[in-house]
Amino acid sequence: MSKNQISPLAPKNFPALPQIAGVLAATHSLGLYKSGRDDLLVVHFPNDAVVAGALTKSSTRSCDVNWCAEALKFGKAKALIVNAGNSNAFTGDAGIAKNEASVTKTRALTNCDAAEVFLSATGVIGVPLPPNIIADSLDEVWRKLAAPDFEQMARTISTTDTFFKGAGKSFELGGKTINIAGIAKGSGMIAPNMATMLVYIFTDAKISAGALQKMVSAHVETTFNAITVDSDTSTSDTLLVFATGEAGNNELGDDEVFSAALFDVMHDLALQVVRDGEGAQKLIKVQVSGAISAKSAKIIAMAIANSPLVKTAIAGADANWGRVAMAVGKSEEHIDQAQMSIRFCGQMVAQFGGAVAFDESQIDEKMQGDLIEIEVDVGVGTDSFTAWTCDLTHGYIDINADYRS
Amino acid sequence: MSKNQISPLAPKNFPALPQIAGVLAATHSLGLYKSGRDDLLVVHFPNDAVVAGALTKSSTRSCDVNWCAEALKFGKAKALIVNAGNSNAFTGDAGIAKNEASVTKTRALTNCDAAEVFLSATGVIGVPLPPNIIADSLDEVWRKLAAPDFEQMARTISTTDTFFKGAGKSFELGGKTINIAGIAKGSGMIAPNMATMLVYIFTDAKISAGALQKMVSAHVETTFNAITVDSDTSTSDTLLVFATGEAGNNELGDDEVFSAALFDVMHDLALQVVRDGEGAQKLIKVQVSGAISAKSAKIIAMAIANSPLVKTAIAGADANWGRVAMAVGKSEEHIDQAQMSIRFCGQMVAQFGGAVAFDESQIDEKMQGDLIEIEVDVGVGTDSFTAWTCDLTHGYIDINADYRS
Repeated sequence: MSKNQISPLAPKNFPALPQIAGVLAATHSLGLYKSGRDDLLVVHFPNDAVVAGALTKSSTRSCDVNWCAEALKFGKAKALIVNAGNSNAFTGDAGIAKNEASVTKTRALTNCDAAEVFLSATGVIGVPLPPNIIADSLDEVWRKLAAPDFEQMARTISTTDTFFKGAGKSFELGGKTINIAGIAKGSGMIAPNMATMLVYIFTDAKISAGALQKMVSAHVETTFNAITVDSDTSTSDTLLVFATGEAGNNELGDDEVFSAALFDVMHDLALQVVRDGEGAQKLIKVQVSGAISAKSAKIIAMAIANSPLVKTAIAGADANWGRVAMAVGKSEEHIDQAQMSIRFCGQMVAQFGGAVAFDESQIDEKMQGDLIEIEVDVGVGTDSFTAWTCDLTHGYIDINADYRS
Repeated sequence: MSKNQISPLAPKNFPALPQIAGVLAATHSLGLYKSGRDDLLVVHFPNDAVVAGALTKSSTRSCDVNWCAEALKFGKAKALIVNAGNSNAFTGDAGIAKNEASVTKTRALTNCDAAEVFLSATGVIGVPLPPNIIADSLDEVWRKLAAPDFEQMARTISTTDTFFKGAGKSFELGGKTINIAGIAKGSGMIAPNMATMLVYIFTDAKISAGALQKMVSAHVETTFNAITVDSDTSTSDTLLVFATGEAGNNELGDDEVFSAALFDVMHDLALQVVRDGEGAQKLIKVQVSGAISAKSAKIIAMAIANSPLVKTAIAGADANWGRVAMAVGKSEEHIDQAQMSIRFCGQMVAQFGGAVAFDESQIDEKMQGDLIEIEVDVGVGTDSFTAWTCDLTHGYIDINADYRS
């Protein structure tokens, strides 16, 4: 956790999460932080797990992300290895050598295929690590494997996070109890395509890899790809969902109940990342409707959510809808200004291409809250999209002007 | 001028600019500012001027910009009317009524066509003005018309500017002296497409409207469309270039000497806008080379120039090239990481997909300067683009979290 104070938007506690049968975990210190805090997370699926995921589309993504992209094609996992403190991005041959050593050692310990090992790293870009730094620790880590402590796992993968992120759900399906538990890290470099963070979700449901991937790909668009902190996209963004199949249910295909539960966990984690946006004081919900397509609605919503002028206005508790109108315009999407309307916190402030008279004192009070809702109807169609972001404050500058040094 | 202190990147003085025959100007106070400062600029071309320009592509652009778009089709100007303190954007029918009243009154005073009157406005969005506010002042303004005081003109159109922006040039062409003088305002909402500000350039050259428009359109891509302060695009961005033809030269077509001089003035004004970026402490030059196309080079350069993480790192005097690599990646443009190189202030810091050993103390010293050069070769082609931006500091938050109130 960073030296910065806990986000005012943080949940009160790390949630109580269900245990997931078939998942073992351990954390460890590689010494990448001066404090000696744990910076290595290892998760082991002794009986294998089905896996699905979504990865950053960055053209400078790390070799860990490239590795996961290849491994995901096979849909099966035996181990997950994540380190904080060094992203292994832009580290050239040294980065690849480190990954190969980690995978080779894991295979020796678990007798699995290379494609069953998943790797992630987060932290500083461009600093090569000794190739065996993780491999040399794995014997000791393997002896520590036990039932997951999700809060400790979330703590271990954190970097500038000011709180640790977890979400989960238990529900009945066909007479069996299904459990889902997930953790996430991330507070800066948060913008779509995709995640912008590391997210690992575990379930004991039995489900086919194809069905799981289909659900993950669909939900990522309205969860992790619908949030932005600063429009920057990480080179390491990784979402992986592991299903151990130990709940005893009949194998799921396109199941709506499971899909809805998975969405809830993904959405909860995505919003927690925004709530920990660097310097965030307010959560901002941007709902765009009346667009000619869902894609257009998303482009407009993200233009608003990424606008520094909108985000600084919210930081100043100013219902400055003119800046929202500006942001809609800069998207260059099709809109009808004469039919456009803008609401702040439920209050109509602009309609039919012009200002609306309203009680400023009422809206001023609402703007003091920590959830600011902006609704824009662009007046040309029926499609909509909801994006989430946070305000832009002095805290963001404090954190990012002095991160490396 | 705003209450904020003058940008440390400001030129020492407003430059001495040549007089432009055929141009009369006056400034006036409409009372849009509490201070009573002048907020209305009127320029009159008694013998007409040829005009060319470039306008914001925003889909919520103001009715003033829409007006100019129509008028520019005719290429002839008799008057320019600009107010600060109210952008007349998103003001619906009231905004159109105000413009019609202003144009009607101007036509009565000058006996010109409606399309010879050019209108701009800058300031708060969405607040309608009384329709006759400008029209009612024009009799008095007309009596004040005189040879231009460019500094006073630049002062009158300023909003959050911390210094007044002017640039000019005089040179010989075919035995005649040609003069160019320009003014600009703008310090926030600065991002391409296009200008992001108001810019008016005046010359006594005789040139065809078509040739002038061609030059303006070409140069805008590498000047005003190559700068960004905060990625936000104004609803009011307007660049207009007026040529009175009173220098006595033979009518210019595609003239390289004039074109180069016009470019210099446009480039100078564009950089002054970046130098006045809200909260700017450092000017950042981003040069991308080795791209597969000029368009790709520009997308990558603007991704770097718009990255809050890059801009805050520069604010912290941190040569954090990892964030540059991240920004290259988020563009999703074609690059070769193994051939990519990054220089900060001339110092190679990453090459062939990895870090380069260098003397940190040398670069630390260069990072203290107020011009930071970032050079990126993406290793896949021969095309390049140069973008300009400024760092992201606490000053930006101070200015924008409390602008309207």
